Amino acid sequence: MDNNGIVKLITDLTAKKIDMQGKDFLLTWEKSRDELDATFLTADILRSLRDANISPRIWDSGIAVSNFRDNSTRTRFSYSSACDLLGLYVQDLDEGKSQIAHGETVRETANMISFLSEAIGIRDDMYLGEGDKYQREVAKALDEGVASGALPSRPTVVNLQSDIDHPTQAMADFLHLAHYFGGVDKLKGKRIAMTWAYSPSYGKPLSVPQGVIGLASRFGMDVALAYPEGYDLIPDVVALSIRQARESGGRLSLTHSMDEAFAGADIVYPKSWAPYEVMLKRVPLLHEGNQAGLKELEKACLANNAKFKDWECTEEKMKLTKEGKALYMHCLPADITGVSCAAGEVAASVFDRYRDDTYREASYKPYIIAAMILLGKFADPAKLLASLLERGQMRVAGF
Amino acid sequence: MDNNGIVKLITDLTAKKIDMQGKDFLLTWEKSRDELDATFLTADILRSLRDANISPRIWDSGIAVSNFRDNSTRTRFSYSSACDLLGLYVQDLDEGKSQIAHGETVRETANMISFLSEAIGIRDDMYLGEGDKYQREVAKALDEGVASGALPSRPTVVNLQSDIDHPTQAMADFLHLAHYFGGVDKLKGKRIAMTWAYSPSYGKPLSVPQGVIGLASRFGMDVALAYPEGYDLIPDVVALSIRQARESGGRLSLTHSMDEAFAGADIVYPKSWAPYEVMLKRVPLLHEGNQAGLKELEKACLANNAKFKDWECTEEKMKLTKEGKALYMHCLPADITGVSCAAGEVAASVFDRYRDDTYREASYKPYIIAAMILLGKFADPAKLLASLLERGQMRVAGF
Amino acid sequence: MDNNGIVKLITDLTAKKIDMQGKDFLLTWEKSRDELDATFLTADILRSLRDANISPRIWDSGIAVSNFRDNSTRTRFSYSSACDLLGLYVQDLDEGKSQIAHGETVRETANMISFLSEAIGIRDDMYLGEGDKYQREVAKALDEGVASGALPSRPTVVNLQSDIDHPTQAMADFLHLAHYFGGVDKLKGKRIAMTWAYSPSYGKPLSVPQGVIGLASRFGMDVALAYPEGYDLIPDVVALSIRQARESGGRLSLTHSMDEAFAGADIVYPKSWAPYEVMLKRVPLLHEGNQAGLKELEKACLANNAKFKDWECTEEKMKLTKEGKALYMHCLPADITGVSCAAGEVAASVFDRYRDDTYREASYKPYIIAAMILLGKFADPAKLLASLLERGQMRVAGF
Repeated sequence: MDNNGIVKLITDLTAKKIDMQGKDFLLTWEKSRDELDATFLTADILRSLRDANISPRIWDSGIAVSNFRDNSTRTRFSYSSACDLLGLYVQDLDEGKSQIAHGETVRETANMISFLSEAIGIRDDMYLGEGDKYQREVAKALDEGVASGALPSRPTVVNLQSDIDHPTQAMADFLHLAHYFGGVDKLKGKRIAMTWAYSPSYGKPLSVPQGVIGLASRFGMDVALAYPEGYDLIPDVVALSIRQARESGGRLSLTHSMDEAFAGADIVYPKSWAPYEVMLKRVPLLHEGNQAGLKELEKACLANNAKFKDWECTEEKMKLTKEGKALYMHCLPADITGVSCAAGEVAASVFDRYRDDTYREASYKPYIIAAMILLGKFADPAKLLASLLERGQMRVAGF
Repeated sequence: MDNNGIVKLITDLTAKKIDMQGKDFLLTWEKSRDELDATFLTADILRSLRDANISPRIWDSGIAVSNFRDNSTRTRFSYSSACDLLGLYVQDLDEGKSQIAHGETVRETANMISFLSEAIGIRDDMYLGEGDKYQREVAKALDEGVASGALPSRPTVVNLQSDIDHPTQAMADFLHLAHYFGGVDKLKGKRIAMTWAYSPSYGKPLSVPQGVIGLASRFGMDVALAYPEGYDLIPDVVALSIRQARESGGRLSLTHSMDEAFAGADIVYPKSWAPYEVMLKRVPLLHEGNQAGLKELEKACLANNAKFKDWECTEEKMKLTKEGKALYMHCLPADITGVSCAAGEVAASVFDRYRDDTYREASYKPYIIAAMILLGKFADPAKLLASLLERGQMRVAGF
Repeated sequence: MDNNGIVKLITDLTAKKIDMQGKDFLLTWEKSRDELDATFLTADILRSLRDANISPRIWDSGIAVSNFRDNSTRTRFSYSSACDLLGLYVQDLDEGKSQIAHGETVRETANMISFLSEAIGIRDDMYLGEGDKYQREVAKALDEGVASGALPSRPTVVNLQSDIDHPTQAMADFLHLAHYFGGVDKLKGKRIAMTWAYSPSYGKPLSVPQGVIGLASRFGMDVALAYPEGYDLIPDVVALSIRQARESGGRLSLTHSMDEAFAGADIVYPKSWAPYEVMLKRVPLLHEGNQAGLKELEKACLANNAKFKDWECTEEKMKLTKEGKALYMHCLPADITGVSCAAGEVAASVFDRYRDDTYREASYKPYIIAAMILLGKFADPAKLLASLLERGQMRVAGF
């Protein structure tokens, strides 16, 4: 993209009515449609600047806190990459290394790590009913810290995956779709099948499917949610998504047949998750460190999963989709039949055909995260981005 | 603070007679009064520059080594923040990850990590008689490395907590006091009660109270040190502090009554620590990995602690202080009665009233650390800081 | 070195015929002599720029991935220092923290960590037959990622130690030799004794001696490889080194006598390693996690080692070298008799005399790594380096 293209995107951004400064990015459904669009645009502008070798570095110094309460490779790298792109140094808040485990309150820690911090990324998706709550506790403590004068400015909290939503994933997914179909507006009327798929593992979080339906329902899409009986998502999130779908001129239908969801789909997103009820049962067991109880729950859950091995994204199922050519999506890593497991979410030949697409899908995440941070910190992001373009500092030195 | 205010601070700094370049910051009592004041001034200047959106970045590249031999959240973040503010990249020397455990000598490691390093922060406070010693071993190895030409320049060693002193904490505490009372010189004659307090834990290091009395005794203050019989600090540090107090026109009194110490105090610092004798006994047990011995020592120690549950900073005790309004201080996290434990160092209502003060107290630490590094590296820090002000590079890009 | 000296080095670099852009640095013997010389020159230029306080920072932002599958202090710091010098932020790919252990393919991970990455450093030397293979798998995945458009550019893979070669070590060793003897060309005809030495440990990798003979044999040197019977290196590497030695106008001789190797040597490199056969036997045991089997192998191996305690670099042996003044080399840490162990690779008095030399030897590694990254990324490195010199940005702010 040449500089005129970037100027055009900045002009589009200027037209969006947003109120994001000083706010966190926790759930996509707390953001207006203009705010979502502004996030997409900002991500595209940052990527275009980088591609044009114009540095989008905003901070000459500054800390970005990385708080991963679960393992992660891709989100960790996306976050680091995003922060580094903007000039922030990532400091891990590793609870193994820290004193948090020794009774230190969230309130205090939130302040202690934030004296020179601009952003705090938190991943906490293991405990249903707790991840989002924890992120809001941190956010509240930061508000108080600013009010009391302890903190010079309010770091933006970015949800890197909670029990409820996975907005950096879902937003990256839909920016990928926007590019694939030629614009966010082209998503209207498209059919997306967000379906459960079989996996020989258990306890996969609900935040990905919830994030996808919570966001797909904003764009007037035909959202087909499908899962075997019993594999419910958080009821409130489904209800909200149905409401949103209606309001945006689309619809959300629920079925217990993968075939039905795939029928005529433009996009399929087959992905395993654990039933809502199981996730609920797991929480006290995890807290107690009840290994025997967890083992038993896992055994029962895997046995139940095994009844639904036909929930696999095969070539046959793909033929049911629109012209047999639906776009396959996955947050990765996928359980690929015959590759990463004997039987899994997707047939190897299907995955092979779409591998590059899933990689491109993932490539948007660093820019989405960078956009979320930037929009949380600046009142006039369009003007800021225009000034970066004008500054024209090279990201890579050259001649 | 506007630029004139910053210029004023730089002028004040110019007037201080200091000899800090090429030296480490290990114990406050190795620094002259002018050098302490220069550290406070430099910290204030760095903070003011940042507040005015003028980047205090000095290094375009450079490594700061972070060597934490104990767990830490707040000091770790303070160190990272300080280093990043100056442009240094923090590389952890994590002995779990490294080969140090395999017989590599301190001498060699000190050199191997320092080829492109500007600062080395070390926290080593667990083993009485060893932390400070280790820091000096590293420092000596660095001197030799520079002399032999292996190292291009001498990294500054900053004591991030040793068995003897915790200078980054104590200096931050007193910069907080300077701001609270309107200047370092206003501390003269003020009464500070550094007292032991009950905690249901054991083995807390001596470096905080030692750091506080070792520094308070430099400013002509009335230092009241109080602890139950048997909870001695390192005798040499107390003797030195008494001497210093006298020399600075103040005094240091020792009592075994919390009430006596609180009486008329302008400042109270109630904080638990383990008796010197216990810390001595622990060292061989820790080295042997003697879990049974440690357990037994802990049991005896906790039983003894429990005799002094009335050493709590309650509302009643606060009424004994000057107009009942002494400033409460703590290095955090505090053991708060009814919050983090059933009975602890401080009553919840007292802590609540002073929470913001303790957060502000902590907020000085990153700047104190940055000042220590800067002063260890540059012969004419005032001139350097003036050049940063003149350069006027924005820390956060804007328009 | 003044700027004219730097210009001279850049001119020398311009004369080298190289084809390194888009290529990785995995084995020195995959690089032409001109490419090795270009790497030495680039390392010297980067060091000279830094010494002259001219920042060699190339990237305003960018990620360098650090993938250490083994413990490391010195290489880890060298890599961080190199990356930071060029402006890259180091993000650890810690397989303990990541999802790799959960069946994620190398292919996918290589792409997921590379969206904004410029370099990937990998250390994987534990499993004979696997380290180099793994590095090539990563490299292939990156090629595919670039071809598919998932990756905006190809990160350079740098071998930070594999089962076959340790090019950053060997190249640093020889840059040290070049400086010691007054130029790479002065190495022609010099005798280097790469000999096994006794150590009370086992399982030390083969990559250091293999790296040394694989590189020494490029410069027309007289390479004396010596080890007790049974302590073979990988046969292919020895065969290749013999061929290379002949082609470069030197020779490689193999002996089972340390004295014979030391006789008349200009340089000695006494260093322990495990026999090739033992390393082969270890691989399945490591994969199985067969602790009993590993223990047994260790026991047998240590017993065999103990037969060769006279393979120690003593004062007596040093007298056999050229005028008794051969340069002693070691990659560190060395097993020093009476210091780090009762009996080891080198006598304390010998090590003492050469300690500073070994530290200087190590000091080249960060610059060698930085040179490898730079040469892998830029088509015209000489022009780039000239532009950095002209830019004249200070590394350390001053006045």
